[in-house]
Amino acid sequence: MNINGIPTRTIRPVEGGVEIIDQTRLPHAFVTRVLTTPEAAAEAIALMRVRGAPLIGATAAYGLALAAHGDASDAGLHAAARLLVATRPTAVNLKWAVDRVMDELLRLPVSERSPAAWIAAEAICAEDVAQNQAIGRHGLGLIRAMAERKAGPVNLLTHCNAGWLATVDWGTALAPVYAAREAGIPVHVWVDETRPRNQGASLTAWELNQAGIPHTVIADNAGGHLMQQGRVDLCIVGTDRTAANGDVCNKIGTYLKALAAFDNGVPFYVAAPGPSIDFSLASGKDIPIEERAPDEVGCIAGRTDDGRLVSVHLTPAGSPCANPAFDVTPARLVTGLITERGLCPASREGLAALYPERA
Amino acid sequence: MNINGIPTRTIRPVEGGVEIIDQTRLPHAFVTRVLTTPEAAAEAIALMRVRGAPLIGATAAYGLALAAHGDASDAGLHAAARLLVATRPTAVNLKWAVDRVMDELLRLPVSERSPAAWIAAEAICAEDVAQNQAIGRHGLGLIRAMAERKAGPVNLLTHCNAGWLATVDWGTALAPVYAAREAGIPVHVWVDETRPRNQGASLTAWELNQAGIPHTVIADNAGGHLMQQGRVDLCIVGTDRTAANGDVCNKIGTYLKALAAFDNGVPFYVAAPGPSIDFSLASGKDIPIEERAPDEVGCIAGRTDDGRLVSVHLTPAGSPCANPAFDVTPARLVTGLITERGLCPASREGLAALYPERA
Repeated sequence: MNINGIPTRTIRPVEGGVEIIDQTRLPHAFVTRVLTTPEAAAEAIALMRVRGAPLIGATAAYGLALAAHGDASDAGLHAAARLLVATRPTAVNLKWAVDRVMDELLRLPVSERSPAAWIAAEAICAEDVAQNQAIGRHGLGLIRAMAERKAGPVNLLTHCNAGWLATVDWGTALAPVYAAREAGIPVHVWVDETRPRNQGASLTAWELNQAGIPHTVIADNAGGHLMQQGRVDLCIVGTDRTAANGDVCNKIGTYLKALAAFDNGVPFYVAAPGPSIDFSLASGKDIPIEERAPDEVGCIAGRTDDGRLVSVHLTPAGSPCANPAFDVTPARLVTGLITERGLCPASREGLAALYPERA
Repeated sequence: MNINGIPTRTIRPVEGGVEIIDQTRLPHAFVTRVLTTPEAAAEAIALMRVRGAPLIGATAAYGLALAAHGDASDAGLHAAARLLVATRPTAVNLKWAVDRVMDELLRLPVSERSPAAWIAAEAICAEDVAQNQAIGRHGLGLIRAMAERKAGPVNLLTHCNAGWLATVDWGTALAPVYAAREAGIPVHVWVDETRPRNQGASLTAWELNQAGIPHTVIADNAGGHLMQQGRVDLCIVGTDRTAANGDVCNKIGTYLKALAAFDNGVPFYVAAPGPSIDFSLASGKDIPIEERAPDEVGCIAGRTDDGRLVSVHLTPAGSPCANPAFDVTPARLVTGLITERGLCPASREGLAALYPERA
């Protein structure tokens, strides 16, 4: 995506390390950081400086490259892999990327592992970009069909950030939106703010702003009402892990939007790149749900009128908070999955038909 | 309710005016204000210094008493009534209270109107308290029945604030919770933070804290997941207007929780005092939905570590926000209404059986 007019990826190798965008500073400041150790990569994932299932997979892959640069022994790589995988439990891309790079490295002599690790990480990034572009093409068909049936822009609703910032480039759920813009189809995006971490209000709004795509930020509570009023044509969200039966684990609150879409006959699609599909899980019930710090609910950071970043307390002292970070949307509520191989029903049969070698 | 150990109502006549709690300052500071003119009463309602359907009805009634104290002519009272009714469109209690006081006053000689207005406003407050106590008794039966079927506390979920602070005393949705506490039944309340104005995180949490009732604040996104996990036994919410067919208009996001409750077999009750029922509306489709300022989504106020109240921007400059304040939950998703006259199905027949003189 172009940031301030310059084609930019969310992660890239640079002299001495790997450069990321510190997403905890957006939308208030665009700040990059250079990670130089696997520990720094793990910290960036744990603190959500990078987030989004595809991007944490890519970051973990580069984390192994940083590890191999220092200590490419079996023990060194295993220690780094354990550290990276332990950062966040829900998105399967993280473990997928680590397992893939480890498989490639461990079969090589130690002396060849460091250059191979960089190549492996770059391959994961390149595949992510290609997958997202393909998801964009397949999702574009849905938006185009909707545009032909109505006057005015196609109104999409998305939850959390499954855009450019969640991936290496293009995004998953937003790739069809960017493809529609390039195809000249007018779109407008309802952006769920996505409490508690506000990835919608902070990240999705910021990147749609950068791309000049019309959008409106809404409280997470508002989407059902907008669907009742006929003001949402299509929902597209991302996924942190999709089970073999098509159940979708995504940012907390996705399930509520899927219920509302179902109740109002609004198509509800999930952009699901191959690495996010976990064929080892029979259903979404088995997906581990990350419980994050209560302070993420009780406090929030924002920008004061004079431009300072300030964190404020929202709840009274003495009121505890709970913070489950993901929920599972049952496959029965999902109209379809948008994968890099095309659309499919959210079902065991649908996924098996597209990924016969994995099912 | 006891505030710092002292029995307190949310609104009361004092020397020279009417005292309210400035609810925009909670939970960070407990500050009272004295309203001395109908304009001040209208401003307090519009700025949400007082909010909650029953309390804005009571405040409007006192606003007319303040008007009658100054100019009790037909013209003077009509002007004040118009001003008060125009403040907020959705809750029917506002118009109900104004119409009732106006009916009583306009049939009296001008010289008798001022004392009669104070008596009428106090009667509305006394009835609110009695209604809420009755709702508490009827709702207590639901909580008691749930407590007998399970071990541990009964886990309730509520949205927005339909507690003491939304009424003159006791609350509507929270009245059964307070009744359960008095009956020695252990309860725990999941408190939806209720973006964008955070009435849950600010007000419900604060008053449950004051009452010593166990509770946990959650993002609005989390309730569906908790229901999927079997961690919610019962939902009780308030209502700003209930149509004759049992459709319920309440704070934005209520509909999403009702969908999740229905999907998970969790009972979903609405505490609906008589004055919130609008028998003139055939269905919820005709209820006007207030659209509030976009800044309520884009900015939020909180308490810094050093105790200052600060408002911060959450969204990027250039990203518009939308802010519908209420939604309509179809009667088919409502397990039952808890009124001061008892429980009834959320249906035309259910309401007509309890209120034959109004249906």
